[in-house]
Amino acid sequence: MAPTRGPRVKKGLLERLDSGEVVIGDGSFLLTLEKRGYVKAGLWTPEAVVEHPNAVRQLHMEFLRAGSDVMQTFTFSASEDNMESQYFEHAVEAVWAVEVLKESGKPVAATMCIGPEGDMHGVTPGECAVKLVKAGASVVGVNCRFGPWTSLKTMSLMKEALQAAGLKAHLMVQPLGFHMPDCGKGGFLDLPEYPFALEPRVATRWDIQKYAREAYNLGVRYIGGCCGFEPYHIRAIAEELAPERGFLPPASEKHCSWGSGLNTHTKPWIRARARREYWENLRPASGRPLCPSLSKPDV
Amino acid sequence: MAPTRGPRVKKGLLERLDSGEVVIGDGSFLLTLEKRGYVKAGLWTPEAVVEHPNAVRQLHMEFLRAGSDVMQTFTFSASEDNMESQYFEHAVEAVWAVEVLKESGKPVAATMCIGPEGDMHGVTPGECAVKLVKAGASVVGVNCRFGPWTSLKTMSLMKEALQAAGLKAHLMVQPLGFHMPDCGKGGFLDLPEYPFALEPRVATRWDIQKYAREAYNLGVRYIGGCCGFEPYHIRAIAEELAPERGFLPPASEKHCSWGSGLNTHTKPWIRARARREYWENLRPASGRPLCPSLSKPDV
Amino acid sequence: MAPTRGPRVKKGLLERLDSGEVVIGDGSFLLTLEKRGYVKAGLWTPEAVVEHPNAVRQLHMEFLRAGSDVMQTFTFSASEDNMESQYFEHAVEAVWAVEVLKESGKPVAATMCIGPEGDMHGVTPGECAVKLVKAGASVVGVNCRFGPWTSLKTMSLMKEALQAAGLKAHLMVQPLGFHMPDCGKGGFLDLPEYPFALEPRVATRWDIQKYAREAYNLGVRYIGGCCGFEPYHIRAIAEELAPERGFLPPASEKHCSWGSGLNTHTKPWIRARARREYWENLRPASGRPLCPSLSKPDV
Amino acid sequence: MAPTRGPRVKKGLLERLDSGEVVIGDGSFLLTLEKRGYVKAGLWTPEAVVEHPNAVRQLHMEFLRAGSDVMQTFTFSASEDNMESQYFEHAVEAVWAVEVLKESGKPVAATMCIGPEGDMHGVTPGECAVKLVKAGASVVGVNCRFGPWTSLKTMSLMKEALQAAGLKAHLMVQPLGFHMPDCGKGGFLDLPEYPFALEPRVATRWDIQKYAREAYNLGVRYIGGCCGFEPYHIRAIAEELAPERGFLPPASEKHCSWGSGLNTHTKPWIRARARREYWENLRPASGRPLCPSLSKPDV
Repeated sequence: MAPTRGPRVKKGLLERLDSGEVVIGDGSFLLTLEKRGYVKAGLWTPEAVVEHPNAVRQLHMEFLRAGSDVMQTFTFSASEDNMESQYFEHAVEAVWAVEVLKESGKPVAATMCIGPEGDMHGVTPGECAVKLVKAGASVVGVNCRFGPWTSLKTMSLMKEALQAAGLKAHLMVQPLGFHMPDCGKGGFLDLPEYPFALEPRVATRWDIQKYAREAYNLGVRYIGGCCGFEPYHIRAIAEELAPERGFLPPASEKHCSWGSGLNTHTKPWIRARARREYWENLRPASGRPLCPSLSKPDV
Repeated sequence: MAPTRGPRVKKGLLERLDSGEVVIGDGSFLLTLEKRGYVKAGLWTPEAVVEHPNAVRQLHMEFLRAGSDVMQTFTFSASEDNMESQYFEHAVEAVWAVEVLKESGKPVAATMCIGPEGDMHGVTPGECAVKLVKAGASVVGVNCRFGPWTSLKTMSLMKEALQAAGLKAHLMVQPLGFHMPDCGKGGFLDLPEYPFALEPRVATRWDIQKYAREAYNLGVRYIGGCCGFEPYHIRAIAEELAPERGFLPPASEKHCSWGSGLNTHTKPWIRARARREYWENLRPASGRPLCPSLSKPDV
Repeated sequence: MAPTRGPRVKKGLLERLDSGEVVIGDGSFLLTLEKRGYVKAGLWTPEAVVEHPNAVRQLHMEFLRAGSDVMQTFTFSASEDNMESQYFEHAVEAVWAVEVLKESGKPVAATMCIGPEGDMHGVTPGECAVKLVKAGASVVGVNCRFGPWTSLKTMSLMKEALQAAGLKAHLMVQPLGFHMPDCGKGGFLDLPEYPFALEPRVATRWDIQKYAREAYNLGVRYIGGCCGFEPYHIRAIAEELAPERGFLPPASEKHCSWGSGLNTHTKPWIRARARREYWENLRPASGRPLCPSLSKPDV
Repeated sequence: MAPTRGPRVKKGLLERLDSGEVVIGDGSFLLTLEKRGYVKAGLWTPEAVVEHPNAVRQLHMEFLRAGSDVMQTFTFSASEDNMESQYFEHAVEAVWAVEVLKESGKPVAATMCIGPEGDMHGVTPGECAVKLVKAGASVVGVNCRFGPWTSLKTMSLMKEALQAAGLKAHLMVQPLGFHMPDCGKGGFLDLPEYPFALEPRVATRWDIQKYAREAYNLGVRYIGGCCGFEPYHIRAIAEELAPERGFLPPASEKHCSWGSGLNTHTKPWIRARARREYWENLRPASGRPLCPSLSKPDV
């Protein structure tokens, strides 16, 4: 399959989801631009948009090239008019923020920063999903705070609750690009490594291919990422789901499927890594024998 | 100390080192651009320079902003005329490549991809350093293949050998930005995670501050990085050595020293992380309890 | 507190529990005698009783000396007449075996090999506890298959269910002496290390002191161990609960509380280990950097 | 091969080694009896011999049954007349104690607690071996302080030094039964886990079979263990070298080679563990994800 620039006709998000398309979201802006030197950790404000527009534009280009169909405006903590957000938040009466995705000014998707155990007041993800759909959201799901596998567990609870309530909605997932099975209800903020020592937790591209496949099998059709998702992680989603979508993203012109580009390496033991089975089963070491493999959350 | 753009007067590399300045190198181009979607792993050819000049320029800008004093031309595997390189290689008769840094067309620095145990034929790093200096190199050291701590060990052996031989040269170090104490003589190529699952090994900014201090204490004055060194790692070198250099890099306008920017966070347990002692002593978890902490090299 | 041989007047188990005493169980016979060379792994039959009575007697002596109040007959898999067992098993209709403790031929205690998630057919530990008490057991609890912390979680579910049902019973816990948070419903049999590579999971004496305290705080008054509990683990229970019981076990004549015996060591850094805080907070390394910290159960 | 009681004719140690036999040593007395409740940690004095002779005798019996050919008198720190020891210590002028094995009152073997890096004063293991042989020892080697793999590395250095000096001696190794690649020159005393939290480091029987084979291949013919070596570890040596020795130890009547006794288990996934390849390649988990895999020695 040759890399192409994807379907030419521009369609709306709902239109695409209604027609059965898989929509690929974008990735990490704040944490990625922090590492590139343009965002300050802690407040995470997006003034880079005006201070360093080229740097922001370059990251947008990278996500598009990697396969993102939707480019979220880079406005975390910056919205002046967040009425829809408040409206949805009111609907779920939840502790955790609701992120609202608008199209042409109209809110279509609402995702929550919630894990499978629910929020501090006992609100479950299933209850949230039901309330958001009843309040008008056409797409519901989760974003941020939890890793890929935990977020898929939450999605599966949301899906069950919607089915039990006889409701229909598209599902959307945008997890962190980190391994964090040790999170509590508060997610990654409560882990001792947040936000400056999360490196050993970063997912590989192979982890993300597996995540994309499981999300698809669960019925999720808007699949993206949040903090920690770099362009190559988005490309991994697009490559895993290329058979379903029928095309590869532009950035795949610089990526050989499952390490197959190594098959011309001069060293035989590196050539031996040029196959899917190798990368799928590899358990990568941290190089940090003095560190634990899990942490205890602060709360 | 307010971020500034550094010393205004443009001086040559040797002039700067001779006058006692600390020179900060740049970081990772190939691996970083691979993750951004512009370089193909395996052959690692630099056609991105012509295919996507904006993407390459953006990364250059990030390293400059992070504090790099020297911007190496992005030409790995691409040199047509590498006579100086061959000349130095002939001098050391070594297995590992010698990377030569030229200024105004004249070779000044020669670094080797060699570890403390030497190369496959028993050539030690001390012998290499002595031969390179005798062959005309004014700056000698190591780059790539090994992590920060291993590379410093190699530097210390080079320094001892030069002293024992009564030779003088500036020292230069540009290690990988990965933790890899499990490497053998061949370095990271022989680790099973190379090149697509090195994520858990990525150094934190605090690791790099420690590395920069140790390099300085050892007498190294050209301190940079190689594969895996992102802009924020270079900034960590510049921040650690700001007292010696007298200024901070531009990117420090978006970075508070030792996590101090967290001291206004709403959650008290996150505020408690706003101090040097916390980050210096943290042993970050991998979030991967099914993975080992070290790997066995393939050879 | 000087070691003594404990209360002189011989009382029955129920009598002791009814009067509020803490009763300390015994430990591992099969796995311990396997390591001493007298029991064959797999079938775990107790013919050692007749073949090597001195070896069995010696282990009994060690547990008594360590503080065990109750010495269970060494008859796993050997009972010819296990009617009471069947009677209780019938009561709970459970998949997992019920172990019955008889006194003067009369069944008094019934424990199950069940974890917090219940058995394969969805029977919960709370349901088991209620049924066993309704079927006549005066003491209920769990033994074997799961580690100390998992077993305490199961006990807490049993306690809640009994309270909810308005039933009263003494609580008893005899977990494995291994760390196994990675167990599924089937317990340690399904872990890849069973039964010949469980060594890295063995609890320290300090782990067991913590377990004993938590069991006591939960209201459990029959506290012992199962496979993997060596004599020094039983002594750790007896030492932790010495304030409540009023006496130390005989084996404490050879054990100084919390490592205090190290305070005369010639090396100052070893003397520094002679304190409770040191051992309570130590996170002991495995010395096995090529091994994971958790395993995936086979089922 | 049926278990037998071994060769009937009683021969002296040197006589056996001279005739090419493999001699199997014994294992851990102090640490093992500490866990059984008869020895106090710290001073490690052997008064158990008079206080609890049955407990000591039982452990002797277990080692004999496991295959030990030589039973060392249990007298650590207890010798009144250690003139030979002093004589040998004088010979090597070493910091570390020399343990001397006498037969009929005559010293024949001298082993040192030394690692591959030598002692604090720069004395190398090779120098020690040469001096001990020149001072009259017929058997030289190492015991205690270091794990199996480290001790074999030391033995290999001793062997090389003896060959280079044109000397001949039998080689003997009695390492700890713990994994401790993180040891410094001082051995296990300097690790933070010593002596009360070494559990996660205990070798499996399969580790010990591998160790026995490597010791044999290196030319060592007196192969035993020190602290941490339980009877089943000694049996593992005897089973691994049964082809060379021609017989199995008595305790093998309760042990099926390489887990083969599991092949009648009711659960198929446990039956699948009944083969050599399974246990040889298993990397056992610690069950402790909050703990590191290596420690930093105190000195």
